[in-house]
Amino acid sequence: MKVLLTGFDPFGGESVNPAFEAIKLLPSTIAGAEIVYVEIPTEFKKSAPAVEAAIKEHNPDIVINVGQAGGRSCVTVEKVGINLADARIPDNAGDQPLDEPLQADGPTGYFATIPVNAMVQNVRAHGLPCHVSFTAGTYVCNCVMYNVLHMCATKYTNIRAGFIHVPYACDQVVDKANGMASMPLETIAKSLEYCVEAVVNNTEDVKETMGTTH
Amino acid sequence: MKVLLTGFDPFGGESVNPAFEAIKLLPSTIAGAEIVYVEIPTEFKKSAPAVEAAIKEHNPDIVINVGQAGGRSCVTVEKVGINLADARIPDNAGDQPLDEPLQADGPTGYFATIPVNAMVQNVRAHGLPCHVSFTAGTYVCNCVMYNVLHMCATKYTNIRAGFIHVPYACDQVVDKANGMASMPLETIAKSLEYCVEAVVNNTEDVKETMGTTH
Amino acid sequence: MKVLLTGFDPFGGESVNPAFEAIKLLPSTIAGAEIVYVEIPTEFKKSAPAVEAAIKEHNPDIVINVGQAGGRSCVTVEKVGINLADARIPDNAGDQPLDEPLQADGPTGYFATIPVNAMVQNVRAHGLPCHVSFTAGTYVCNCVMYNVLHMCATKYTNIRAGFIHVPYACDQVVDKANGMASMPLETIAKSLEYCVEAVVNNTEDVKETMGTTH
Amino acid sequence: MKVLLTGFDPFGGESVNPAFEAIKLLPSTIAGAEIVYVEIPTEFKKSAPAVEAAIKEHNPDIVINVGQAGGRSCVTVEKVGINLADARIPDNAGDQPLDEPLQADGPTGYFATIPVNAMVQNVRAHGLPCHVSFTAGTYVCNCVMYNVLHMCATKYTNIRAGFIHVPYACDQVVDKANGMASMPLETIAKSLEYCVEAVVNNTEDVKETMGTTH
Repeated sequence: MKVLLTGFDPFGGESVNPAFEAIKLLPSTIAGAEIVYVEIPTEFKKSAPAVEAAIKEHNPDIVINVGQAGGRSCVTVEKVGINLADARIPDNAGDQPLDEPLQADGPTGYFATIPVNAMVQNVRAHGLPCHVSFTAGTYVCNCVMYNVLHMCATKYTNIRAGFIHVPYACDQVVDKANGMASMPLETIAKSLEYCVEAVVNNTEDVKETMGTTH
Repeated sequence: MKVLLTGFDPFGGESVNPAFEAIKLLPSTIAGAEIVYVEIPTEFKKSAPAVEAAIKEHNPDIVINVGQAGGRSCVTVEKVGINLADARIPDNAGDQPLDEPLQADGPTGYFATIPVNAMVQNVRAHGLPCHVSFTAGTYVCNCVMYNVLHMCATKYTNIRAGFIHVPYACDQVVDKANGMASMPLETIAKSLEYCVEAVVNNTEDVKETMGTTH
Repeated sequence: MKVLLTGFDPFGGESVNPAFEAIKLLPSTIAGAEIVYVEIPTEFKKSAPAVEAAIKEHNPDIVINVGQAGGRSCVTVEKVGINLADARIPDNAGDQPLDEPLQADGPTGYFATIPVNAMVQNVRAHGLPCHVSFTAGTYVCNCVMYNVLHMCATKYTNIRAGFIHVPYACDQVVDKANGMASMPLETIAKSLEYCVEAVVNNTEDVKETMGTTH
Repeated sequence: MKVLLTGFDPFGGESVNPAFEAIKLLPSTIAGAEIVYVEIPTEFKKSAPAVEAAIKEHNPDIVINVGQAGGRSCVTVEKVGINLADARIPDNAGDQPLDEPLQADGPTGYFATIPVNAMVQNVRAHGLPCHVSFTAGTYVCNCVMYNVLHMCATKYTNIRAGFIHVPYACDQVVDKANGMASMPLETIAKSLEYCVEAVVNNTEDVKETMGTTH
């Protein structure tokens, strides 16, 4: 089994992206599955094509895109990507789509096809906080999540896919407002490793409430 | 034009639901449109049928369901409902669905068909905070939002619909943890009024970024 | 009985200060006590002298200084002022003291001599959130609190004094980050009124825990 | 040079106290200073006497008490202890003082005599978030901070002292609300080590704003 992980290049004024930095710390195999990874641009137009190029090159069974969610306090596994691009800040190419669909004829949303509950459960079983998130936002992270799930639903139907958001790394918040959440890069990487392990080991998701009242 | 508003009965140990209390403070007409409202149960099974019964009785042009999002600091307009029921706590009938679809053959999500950006813009224009939310959770609020949009997509195609979340009313948080967010009921009602006004006055939504990076 | 209230002029890029705006909404008498108020500058050097000038002019029994605590979600009553000036941003005169004492020979701190627990209790009894705060920061708010308590301990020993922080008014946060806390000016004013009422009616404070574990 | 560190036993329903767990991970010398540590009870009456017993046994130059501040996102160095005991929950002996002084004839507050700015600066220089806190609360943490500073001001005048608060360890928040802040125990220990290093290396504090507007 082969798992393709992707991380974005830095955006929003940051000099690193903890998603890609953490991915680089992962072992070369997890639960017997081979791990390959690529960096992709934080751009609405080029990000999903960059994932598709990596799919063609590596022929993975599983694709997990990873992005930064600055301000969240732990790794979160996204449940759903939506057909919406609405950029509060320009992307790294200067594009700033406003309230536009990502796929003119695409469905409103796609659920992740990786087992999000089992992933969260496995991270927690190792003593680290983790939870399911029900919004990946409306920026490039959601764009890649939605577009990759669309791609897998229509062209690469054997691939399971999904998205993980990671917090700021500790050194990113040293100069930010007091109390801004962060996590050591090594802890982010461990969380990702337990997520991947659960994906490799679970074809079906587990029944355990990860829901929110709002 | 006629607008049907619904509010839930209290849940989660609260003795009132600020959604319904605020609705009762609204004027009988807004921007020339007639306002009617009903209370619906905080139950996965009975909530959407209660809305449908009110649709049949009142024959509205617009349906807006309103619910409590305890902990949020202002009124938020929901962009999307998803085909998922995952209850952290039992509903008022004791049901607690875990990671189940709301409609076995329904699409993954529905976008609100009311102009969410224009609604937020109008509340803000009156000096009150407001923002678009991209998750209505996985409890009864999302259940009603999704099911009513499904109903309107399949059976009541002339009706525009959507969902608004309101904060705790002030008196609900007096005994909660220091710093818990709340809003006076009158301010919640004013926010709702400006939302409804924007729905009545805007068939198309406005282009203004209300997005989030995550 | 006469109560002197003070509010600051705007600072930190704001065009209004909700403290002074709310004070202007108060009735001319509360619980039989006459209310007088003055605006004071957000300056380390001139703020306490401005309060002293008003004390000399009005000869009050009670002095309550009120300031903005942007980001807090409700009115908070300060328990203690400390002998420290440490300015993250320059004050309105351009002064920016770093880790300096306010009074070279002053004690480390002064507790408010108004009944903070009774004040919070009375606001809550009217259905509004309120809590005691154990830090007024290290900026001009703390400067005035400490210096006025010092003045009352050494020169105006019949005057009881203290400090109240108020949240942003709603219209101040319309353009800030989604979810920033605020309160309608009228609700802030009501909270202040109940605070003043409790000061007038309680010479001694009540025993009720308002404490925090940290 | 010898540094005495203290950590509390668990309280508030927790099975561990990350303060003491992190202290146990520290090296036996930091910046050439010998490190000794003791566990003290989370009790208003017995905690400061336990510190004094350790002072008599170890004859330290520096005393740093460390406690848990559940909900904070990083290590914080306390600037001031206040003469107030006000317990929201009973301590581990069942005592619950309400709005009482810690020392009947003690001053209102004591500033830490360790260089809090230099400590925060050193942690940040190693890429970890840290900030000064201006309230240690009104529970046993503040009780120990105030009483130890009182003891050092009156009886052990050669000893410099202060207090550090640490976040929940990661495994403490796995079952708490989504998004609750935490830090790996190793990262807490590293932060404490950099704090101690700065205390050993700086007799005087550095001038750098660590202040807050409120």
